[in-house]
Amino acid sequence: MEKLSGNEIQEKLRDLNIISENPWQLNGDAIEKEFLFEDFIRAFSFMTKVAIVVEKFSHHPEWTNIFNRVIVTLRTHEADGLTNLDFDIANEIEHLL
Amino acid sequence: MEKLSGNEIQEKLRDLNIISENPWQLNGDAIEKEFLFEDFIRAFSFMTKVAIVVEKFSHHPEWTNIFNRVIVTLRTHEADGLTNLDFDIANEIEHLL
Repeated sequence: MEKLSGNEIQEKLRDLNIISENPWQLNGDAIEKEFLFEDFIRAFSFMTKVAIVVEKFSHHPEWTNIFNRVIVTLRTHEADGLTNLDFDIANEIEHLL
Repeated sequence: MEKLSGNEIQEKLRDLNIISENPWQLNGDAIEKEFLFEDFIRAFSFMTKVAIVVEKFSHHPEWTNIFNRVIVTLRTHEADGLTNLDFDIANEIEHLL
């Protein structure tokens, strides 16, 4: 799993955000997005779907839930940065919405 | 929902931690505990159980998951501090383990 360069990250972020309502953003060596829902049940239902996807990819986010908000952070520890896998999963997450 | 005093919090924390493997701790105006599991599936299964409990109580934590770790933070925003409800839910969470 190869670490992406700054240019590759910018390009992938642009592609990713074409289908996003509100953009994923670069935060240090990770990409991050806050998802907003109507209530807790909807927020946690989304988390359940994401949980199954990330387990399938064996690649897990750091994520926080506060009532109707879910903040998802993706990075690849093994590569000490962002890899294609992070963007693949971000795209999968977008398709769950 | 009445805000608990410092003494009440210490007493309730003592009672709560009798049944805990590793203790809940006071963090500012909240109580917090890190739960460790064997893997992501077990960590997220625990979160699913907690989700149903907190929704039943209409009282939601701020919580973060990183692979096999779940950090749960409880406070009562409406009371600007800790209330009996936070400790009731912490006890319920302990019984889920």
